[in-house]
Amino acid sequence: MGVKLGILGLGTVGTGTVQLLQDKGFRHPLLQEVEIYRVGVRSLDKPRAVTLPDSVLTTDLEAIVTDPAVDIVVEVMGGLEKARSLILKAIQNGKHVVTANKAVISRFGDEIFTAANQAGVYVMLEAAVGGGIPVIQPLKQSLSVNRIHTVTGIINGTTNYILTRMQTEGSNFSDVLADAQRLGYAEADPTADVDGLDAADKIAILASLAFGGRIKLKDVYSEGIRQVSKTDIAYAEKLGFVIKLLAIAQSAAPLAAIANRTTPSSPLISVRVHPTLVPKAHPLASINGVNNAILVEGEPIGQVMFFGPGAGAGATASAVSSDILNLVAALKKSKTALNPLLACAHQDYCQIVPMAELVTRFYARFLTKDQPGVIGKLGTCFGNHGVSLESVVQTGFQGELAEIVVVTHDVREGDFRQALTEIQTLTAVDSIPSLLRVV
Amino acid sequence: MGVKLGILGLGTVGTGTVQLLQDKGFRHPLLQEVEIYRVGVRSLDKPRAVTLPDSVLTTDLEAIVTDPAVDIVVEVMGGLEKARSLILKAIQNGKHVVTANKAVISRFGDEIFTAANQAGVYVMLEAAVGGGIPVIQPLKQSLSVNRIHTVTGIINGTTNYILTRMQTEGSNFSDVLADAQRLGYAEADPTADVDGLDAADKIAILASLAFGGRIKLKDVYSEGIRQVSKTDIAYAEKLGFVIKLLAIAQSAAPLAAIANRTTPSSPLISVRVHPTLVPKAHPLASINGVNNAILVEGEPIGQVMFFGPGAGAGATASAVSSDILNLVAALKKSKTALNPLLACAHQDYCQIVPMAELVTRFYARFLTKDQPGVIGKLGTCFGNHGVSLESVVQTGFQGELAEIVVVTHDVREGDFRQALTEIQTLTAVDSIPSLLRVV
Repeated sequence: MGVKLGILGLGTVGTGTVQLLQDKGFRHPLLQEVEIYRVGVRSLDKPRAVTLPDSVLTTDLEAIVTDPAVDIVVEVMGGLEKARSLILKAIQNGKHVVTANKAVISRFGDEIFTAANQAGVYVMLEAAVGGGIPVIQPLKQSLSVNRIHTVTGIINGTTNYILTRMQTEGSNFSDVLADAQRLGYAEADPTADVDGLDAADKIAILASLAFGGRIKLKDVYSEGIRQVSKTDIAYAEKLGFVIKLLAIAQSAAPLAAIANRTTPSSPLISVRVHPTLVPKAHPLASINGVNNAILVEGEPIGQVMFFGPGAGAGATASAVSSDILNLVAALKKSKTALNPLLACAHQDYCQIVPMAELVTRFYARFLTKDQPGVIGKLGTCFGNHGVSLESVVQTGFQGELAEIVVVTHDVREGDFRQALTEIQTLTAVDSIPSLLRVV
Repeated sequence: MGVKLGILGLGTVGTGTVQLLQDKGFRHPLLQEVEIYRVGVRSLDKPRAVTLPDSVLTTDLEAIVTDPAVDIVVEVMGGLEKARSLILKAIQNGKHVVTANKAVISRFGDEIFTAANQAGVYVMLEAAVGGGIPVIQPLKQSLSVNRIHTVTGIINGTTNYILTRMQTEGSNFSDVLADAQRLGYAEADPTADVDGLDAADKIAILASLAFGGRIKLKDVYSEGIRQVSKTDIAYAEKLGFVIKLLAIAQSAAPLAAIANRTTPSSPLISVRVHPTLVPKAHPLASINGVNNAILVEGEPIGQVMFFGPGAGAGATASAVSSDILNLVAALKKSKTALNPLLACAHQDYCQIVPMAELVTRFYARFLTKDQPGVIGKLGTCFGNHGVSLESVVQTGFQGELAEIVVVTHDVREGDFRQALTEIQTLTAVDSIPSLLRVV
């Protein structure tokens, strides 16, 4: 056997990966050279869906990452601190690493990739974003001849499932969440998904690859879907939009300006996760249920989109195994020199635009007293701050209050928020229940 | 400078590639090592959109592929015989090759890849299928750990543009074709696109990569869109379908059977291009206009789809340049050993299922005399040949004749055609104007 794996963890993803690797017929012949040498687990007694020799299973995970015989450490245990320290120790021991751990990479990527570059090993992470969808490798290899302008993803299946059901059934967030938890599509503690934190981890990773600079996770703006109401979904529908939780990494400069800069400097980008009104004709508008999709826009390629299952044992095992296969192929070619397209290429950080500087369209819903001239007063406040309106609709009533929905043209977020502050002082305005960005 | 390119051809794709490579800021830094060393053209006097030194341009293409200084030959001249012989001569001279030429690869791929393997050089072809969409590299690298069951593509932009307009405008094929020719979306001689030959070239290439065996182009069944009528598009719409020109490569055995075969043998697949009824909820149903998309289904990944611009100077230049970048990275690592995931892995041929053995659903439209009992007679004929019907609709009249539309369940194509032969003998049946497969 050629290449020895030390697999850390035998949960859903670990089990899926072992199943794939134990059943090599009619897959790529190079997989024949892969040996499942050690698998680290928490307990040896637990019943398992895969059969492994006693000599392979161990509870001593440290021993795996330091074992001189192990070539590649496959970290599929999840969690933060222990996974981080095992990955770092594996690197120090000269192991290549394959990980599915978006949380560790988005938080400790700088430390991990610096260590990997020093040790001359690869850290592969196709499974960290988009489940089985090949997106990390295309960004590293096929698309990197482009100047990337925007990466926009639906990269959290749970929230997309919830929003899709709210859209199709006209249901409330809390009802659909409860049902999703019952059906296993949402965790008992849904915070990481529902508040956009999982998507923030993932867009930080995609941004780093697309724009060639590291990202500090704390700079990623993240807003979840708890405040998305069925009222807003219905208004969005009437205006020709669907509401999606988008993760967006976007160059702050127009493409022409990027190309004309004479001194290369670190990229200036916005990185953010928020519920967003998406026009129905947009390629991401029809991505429904637990599916994921990542839309990449660049010059000269235009728009390309990658679509598929964002989670699940089989899809994630496909991504983990493809990283293993790529390492086996790369190691076959040369055990010393790294392929620069597979290794991490950058040490600098991207500059992140503060949200107040973001230029975007907005959707806002106002509850106002039913008085003549309210729309005029709103328009005046917006005009005072340079906010130009694309549409103003007064369609309904909530009790005694009139409901007014506004969609703006592109505006600096800081200016828009100043206009809202002024609007909140108007006696005719009761409240501003919803505020969403529009793509 | 590191890597010297000899580019054959300076048409649309060649010009796009030169423009990309002359403007390297904010693209992958490894592109800095690429030098446009020679560009072979037909005439030195033609006005061009790019500026190149006189010493770079030459009309002597043979001299480029034999020049000892050239590392990579980039064939973007198109055509058949001359491109083939220059590619083969480049390989014999130890050059790596990047080509966008689907016609040459689908016809002479066996000869070219055999020569490349003997010479120890790469032949890269990302631009040959799907324009800028990364699909060749994902099939070679990310997805090859899967057992691929089906590759289904909308991989001809011209026909998808025509069918989309027929669908949205209710127009006839010939009217839309004439308009597409006027607008530059279709060639003056539209045969290669409209009769499915371009898509056949491309699906032969995708099938070869997905199923790990070579394909003889003459074995690819190809049926174009000339016979698709607005009547059928309207019936399809009512039944919940859109009509698309699909290129399909599909394992003839269910996945379980593939996995359980004890003796690996060459894959048994169907490879075909034909207009197809696609359910509206299918991921390919919403791919409109000149866009391309490729849906890959396999175990354990499930469904993944790649979407983007299928043609155009910029998109194709992105694909060509990504191949160049990948070669530069691979050569940096080792100039002698080939990476087995980038090189061609197989010498055997796939076994192709004859169309009579294909199992698929069918849509058929009949014109019959307006007599009682006609549907019963049709049903009897179908039953005689084991054809089970999913729906039978009699909706309209064409003059004195009644129009009956039938959609079958899965059926062996040979059995279905025997039933049709019997039906044509019925005195009540005037004609069978349409026959389409259903996915």
